[in-house]
Amino acid sequence: MSAGNDVWGDRASAGPPSPFFRSRWVPRPAHVSELSPDAGLPQGFRAAGVACGIKPSGNHDVGLIVCDSESPVSAARFTDTGTPAAPVLLSQERCSLHALRGVLVNSGCANAATGARGLEDAAKTQGAAAVALGVQPEQVALGSTGGISMHLPVEKMLQGILAAQRELRREGDGDFQQAIQTTDAFEKRAILQVSLPSGTVRLAAQCKGAGMISPSFATMLCFVETDAALEPHTADLLLGVCVKRSFDRCSVDGQLSTNDTAILMSSGASGVKVAPESEDELRLGEALDALLRQLAIMMVADGEGAKRTGRVVVSGGHEQAVEAVARTVANSPLVKTALYGGDPNWGRLIQAVGAAMRGTAPLPVDLTIEGMKVCSAGAAIPHDEQALQEAVQREEVEYEITLPGEGAETEVFFSDLGYEYVRVNAEYTT
Amino acid sequence: MSAGNDVWGDRASAGPPSPFFRSRWVPRPAHVSELSPDAGLPQGFRAAGVACGIKPSGNHDVGLIVCDSESPVSAARFTDTGTPAAPVLLSQERCSLHALRGVLVNSGCANAATGARGLEDAAKTQGAAAVALGVQPEQVALGSTGGISMHLPVEKMLQGILAAQRELRREGDGDFQQAIQTTDAFEKRAILQVSLPSGTVRLAAQCKGAGMISPSFATMLCFVETDAALEPHTADLLLGVCVKRSFDRCSVDGQLSTNDTAILMSSGASGVKVAPESEDELRLGEALDALLRQLAIMMVADGEGAKRTGRVVVSGGHEQAVEAVARTVANSPLVKTALYGGDPNWGRLIQAVGAAMRGTAPLPVDLTIEGMKVCSAGAAIPHDEQALQEAVQREEVEYEITLPGEGAETEVFFSDLGYEYVRVNAEYTT
Repeated sequence: MSAGNDVWGDRASAGPPSPFFRSRWVPRPAHVSELSPDAGLPQGFRAAGVACGIKPSGNHDVGLIVCDSESPVSAARFTDTGTPAAPVLLSQERCSLHALRGVLVNSGCANAATGARGLEDAAKTQGAAAVALGVQPEQVALGSTGGISMHLPVEKMLQGILAAQRELRREGDGDFQQAIQTTDAFEKRAILQVSLPSGTVRLAAQCKGAGMISPSFATMLCFVETDAALEPHTADLLLGVCVKRSFDRCSVDGQLSTNDTAILMSSGASGVKVAPESEDELRLGEALDALLRQLAIMMVADGEGAKRTGRVVVSGGHEQAVEAVARTVANSPLVKTALYGGDPNWGRLIQAVGAAMRGTAPLPVDLTIEGMKVCSAGAAIPHDEQALQEAVQREEVEYEITLPGEGAETEVFFSDLGYEYVRVNAEYTT
Repeated sequence: MSAGNDVWGDRASAGPPSPFFRSRWVPRPAHVSELSPDAGLPQGFRAAGVACGIKPSGNHDVGLIVCDSESPVSAARFTDTGTPAAPVLLSQERCSLHALRGVLVNSGCANAATGARGLEDAAKTQGAAAVALGVQPEQVALGSTGGISMHLPVEKMLQGILAAQRELRREGDGDFQQAIQTTDAFEKRAILQVSLPSGTVRLAAQCKGAGMISPSFATMLCFVETDAALEPHTADLLLGVCVKRSFDRCSVDGQLSTNDTAILMSSGASGVKVAPESEDELRLGEALDALLRQLAIMMVADGEGAKRTGRVVVSGGHEQAVEAVARTVANSPLVKTALYGGDPNWGRLIQAVGAAMRGTAPLPVDLTIEGMKVCSAGAAIPHDEQALQEAVQREEVEYEITLPGEGAETEVFFSDLGYEYVRVNAEYTT
């Protein structure tokens, strides 16, 4: 799909400013309102988070979500790495991903590169969570984040599961959020109210991620709950499309986690049915899209000491070309350090475009930064250098690249690269 | 070709230590000896470097090399970026690359992203250099390095060409070296004596590069001269193979310059003929290979504040897989920051392998660091953590990755990523 074309966002009204929808790239849809952080999960959901001693800090490190509906509907997406962690493999291969009743997460240990024992450990905790929640093991998905190559402390986890079970409540999403965070500098959580033609539903999400975090690489995890009644195909479609337009369009450092997981669960407890291809589906999709895009931009903005967030929009050419150019720009350490320095050094973007488009020389590429055109058909053109200098020092900086041809467009959000990234990633030792 | 298998290096003797061949990964071949830096270029070559005012520092910024042979033989390789600089385009399209008589270089301006005017400016300087050297314009190749998007100061260049012409001498390679350097922390230059079965020849090189250097991205340039008599096909073959095994196996920051250029020139003035497929050709190839590999590793070691140099050797799988894995590891900011920190955090390499091999899960990958196996078939195995901790703090650190299957092998040399990289690339403004 054409991600640069903000399909749903274009319909958004300006509305009053929202503490959650704070990026200029994600306007709040008019039929969506933000509830207070302690408003509680959508009907039919309870959550909890406790400390079981995995994290040396003593912070929360085990979390549970349970859906109390007898006939829940869910959907899931995972990292496509060649070296997935045990919880990812187990969830993919052993769970009823379209009818999940619960989620068990931990932080402080990714249970990755742990081989057969890692799978066994994950299975033990899955079994324990199933018993604690009164559901079947295949109804419980797993998520882990933290150091890799170390084994899961199963004993601690089992105690944590029991403790968390006793804490389950509708307002438990704040504790759950703490249990999935690692070095996130701020919370990525929201509770939204969504007005659909057929009635009002609630939509909540808890999300973590700040790039790949020392002392080992970390992960993005996102859990979304709604009390709208969805069909399995609808849940899968909405999550699939919205993940592609949000988390798949982000880069902190171009790295791919072993543990990335996004899960959407629907209890149906509101009684509001969302039929396929209905106006309800469209409106719920708009809300989910805005929710996940804002969460994704928050992850980028939290990217290990990031000062500024960039958005590169590439159009023209064909699908593969715009994707390659957008990724190469977003992952370029030269572009990222220039963004960090508030430096209008746009030659670095031309370098990245050329690297992504080898063998096409000379390539007539256009480049516009914050609305100012600086390069036309591959050559520098006169522009207001003072205005450009000021524009690249904003909190969010937008780059538009046009390749020859028509028909394709994409975007990637990315963080800058500064001292803090090096400090976080070089100065800890496992 | 299988670059990990050190075809020529394997024949090398240990010999006495050499100031130039200082990487453990490039043993000095037994029939190669290093001459002093002021020994002079191979017979038939003169060089010069002067300051013409392009660099604000007042350092040398224009250089010339001339081959005084009437029937020189040469070969060249260039960046394959989609956005090459004007000097690259002009050299590729307008030069007799197999019979070059001269080289004109400048630093302080890359003449990139300068469109039609950039090509015109380059042509003017090429014409001026041809007149100054008494040769034809198509016999003069161009090389530029420095800031991009700015136009070449042609007037200054013309004055510089005239001044350099007056300085041309066999011992001018040191001045020429200065004229191509930008922020290189140390000189990358050598004069070697090579014993071939048919006689003794001289082989010299001047090289610059320290990654992509602020205030704009920079470049690798390498000029090699020999007084051996080569046929055009031999020059092209030797340069092509040796560039593939050296500069093509390096990564400072995964960026691709608009200006990369490597040129080999042969005067034949020694009278020693190197026939195709002869023992002479093999021995000269060994010498050129060692020379370019050592220069390439010096570029990596000079990589913008680099403390440590890594070498990743990937075997198994197939050509595309080993290449993708080696590049992804070498360009991973997480692997690079761990190398900088002297951190044995090898989970980051597993992450990079997984990212390069999407859709192959679970991948039974083996990882050995400095001879110590830490991961077998994708799972951590017990190892001496103290010894590993010490090993990764050496100046050169080697990682061996084995994928399932057989038959392919490659290597990439890479620098670490530390504060200095950020400082160099974020704190200057164009």
